[in-house]
Amino acid sequence: MIADSEFISSKEIPGPTKEEIRCLLLCKSEVSSNDIVVDIGCGTGGITTEFAKIAKKVIAIDKNPKAIELTLKNLQKHGVEKKVDLIENDGISALKSIKNIDIAIIGGSDGDLNDILQIISSKLNPNGRILVTSILIDTKLQAINKLKELGYEPKIIEVNISRGKVLERGVMMIALNPIAIIYSNK
Amino acid sequence: MIADSEFISSKEIPGPTKEEIRCLLLCKSEVSSNDIVVDIGCGTGGITTEFAKIAKKVIAIDKNPKAIELTLKNLQKHGVEKKVDLIENDGISALKSIKNIDIAIIGGSDGDLNDILQIISSKLNPNGRILVTSILIDTKLQAINKLKELGYEPKIIEVNISRGKVLERGVMMIALNPIAIIYSNK
Amino acid sequence: MIADSEFISSKEIPGPTKEEIRCLLLCKSEVSSNDIVVDIGCGTGGITTEFAKIAKKVIAIDKNPKAIELTLKNLQKHGVEKKVDLIENDGISALKSIKNIDIAIIGGSDGDLNDILQIISSKLNPNGRILVTSILIDTKLQAINKLKELGYEPKIIEVNISRGKVLERGVMMIALNPIAIIYSNK
Amino acid sequence: MIADSEFISSKEIPGPTKEEIRCLLLCKSEVSSNDIVVDIGCGTGGITTEFAKIAKKVIAIDKNPKAIELTLKNLQKHGVEKKVDLIENDGISALKSIKNIDIAIIGGSDGDLNDILQIISSKLNPNGRILVTSILIDTKLQAINKLKELGYEPKIIEVNISRGKVLERGVMMIALNPIAIIYSNK
Repeated sequence: MIADSEFISSKEIPGPTKEEIRCLLLCKSEVSSNDIVVDIGCGTGGITTEFAKIAKKVIAIDKNPKAIELTLKNLQKHGVEKKVDLIENDGISALKSIKNIDIAIIGGSDGDLNDILQIISSKLNPNGRILVTSILIDTKLQAINKLKELGYEPKIIEVNISRGKVLERGVMMIALNPIAIIYSNK
Repeated sequence: MIADSEFISSKEIPGPTKEEIRCLLLCKSEVSSNDIVVDIGCGTGGITTEFAKIAKKVIAIDKNPKAIELTLKNLQKHGVEKKVDLIENDGISALKSIKNIDIAIIGGSDGDLNDILQIISSKLNPNGRILVTSILIDTKLQAINKLKELGYEPKIIEVNISRGKVLERGVMMIALNPIAIIYSNK
Repeated sequence: MIADSEFISSKEIPGPTKEEIRCLLLCKSEVSSNDIVVDIGCGTGGITTEFAKIAKKVIAIDKNPKAIELTLKNLQKHGVEKKVDLIENDGISALKSIKNIDIAIIGGSDGDLNDILQIISSKLNPNGRILVTSILIDTKLQAINKLKELGYEPKIIEVNISRGKVLERGVMMIALNPIAIIYSNK
Repeated sequence: MIADSEFISSKEIPGPTKEEIRCLLLCKSEVSSNDIVVDIGCGTGGITTEFAKIAKKVIAIDKNPKAIELTLKNLQKHGVEKKVDLIENDGISALKSIKNIDIAIIGGSDGDLNDILQIISSKLNPNGRILVTSILIDTKLQAINKLKELGYEPKIIEVNISRGKVLERGVMMIALNPIAIIYSNK
């Protein structure tokens, strides 16, 4: 895994998604070298970069041009930019041009989560997987309910991780904010 | 309870202990208006202030003069300074002059936790209670082991609390750092 | 506080609410001897018992006769049954006969949370407080949104507590299930 | 990843290590097809099975014959038994016959953690990695301190994961016990 500090970051752009969460997304998605991955709301590019190291192709989408720029920088830093298509657009518009999806990861949906899940579901290959990361209670519930409505059997984990800081006087634990992963196979 | 923001704080002094932890200390200590409480490492004075509102008397100890000064300000702000004796000294030295303890709370022991627990134990009234708060793995274990050695049956809880931030787009949870409370009755 | 094990419990009835959560409810509610408290979905009676020890009166409501019976047993065990009115009914029906509420605690609403919050709000005294405990993501969000709609400024904390088990070979932490407290002053 | 339920388990043998923890171990270890992995205290065989799917070879050690038997069953169930050497012995004795280690994972050390870490360190290849999982406060601290003493710069994360249970009336979160991962590169 790539350490959080090995991504170029920006105060204006959220991310990178913490290392442990990227790790859990890789595992839960069962990503392989055959997979076409869509990363909606790529932000800093942390998730895009990790999946690009393994997948056949990643399509990274963000409506914020600064996020697209930052993601490109991080892809280049980690040498995987050739495996990624970058689309500067909102999720719904960007998804129109995409035909086959093996894995969809939704980190930012800008209020369009229901529609985005619906569109993704219609383009998801057999054995496809959908994963939503969420820091908002609202989004957790919405993702679960919409996936259920679309016929999925979503699972959810809530992850609270603390990282130790080894000080002279002992080891202090520093909490990362809780984040949920909602995921389902087709 | 007093909200965290209602304490005067200082970048140089740790604390105030978060509201929820102060609350759990009040409950676990079973503090009443008959109790003489010792607060070792009073820092900002959060715990001292809360216990002063209920206890007969609180003796607040800190070797840092700025902590003593800050604790006094907070006691005055919340109108309970008359119930508190402030001692600017390290825990071991300060405890020498103290005879009876109903409740001892140790938030900072500056490397002297074992000795402090030993001294407190010798001055603890029947039905007395000892509580240690700890953000260091080392201190958690030391408190448990020393209390066992002194014949106590310590309990420990580890508390991970997140507080919601109600944003326009939803409710985001912000994690407080984990903290342990080790406690025992005599 | 009363230890979890000091409540008579039943496999058919949820609860008692864990000691640490009862403690946080006491603190967050700022309960005093002047307060009339309503406990909706009293279950085992853990919360009712704790508040009865401090408040002027508690009205405990549960539609399950076995919960009412169990709550009574626990009130008697802890000697506070005289301070409690028990109502065997659903929340909405039971609230009709109640006029003044200083503190409302909702632990179980059986799908009627929105209506219950609306009714409580109309009967809540100035300086009244509403607290909802929730183990369901759905209820957390619903409580926040309904309270906002009713003009409150709700806060939420999510509590993850682990309790240590002191074994021969070391101290093992056992997790309690996460629970949220949503609360607001009038 | 293999779901927890896809491992044959036994009440007498701890494990399998939860899916999310196995996932984090795979990521933190950076395991590749060139690596020789040692799994000390293999228990149910969860970690051994996962690493066997990726690594060149796994040497799984447990002093309990029933654990060795159970691990074998799980390796066979998941078709990776050919990549694993099973050693029924305590960690210290078993390590004597092992020369090169790329990755050592210590899930159970039966009181010998310091010695085991010392021996592993002496056999660890350049770029080797050591990972300790711990549910005991004592072991967390011991692992950190011994690794520091041996010249490593250990990191620690504490993982609190809750898994959602999608019920008719909503999504309830069920907590897994907290577990720490202490890890370091050579």
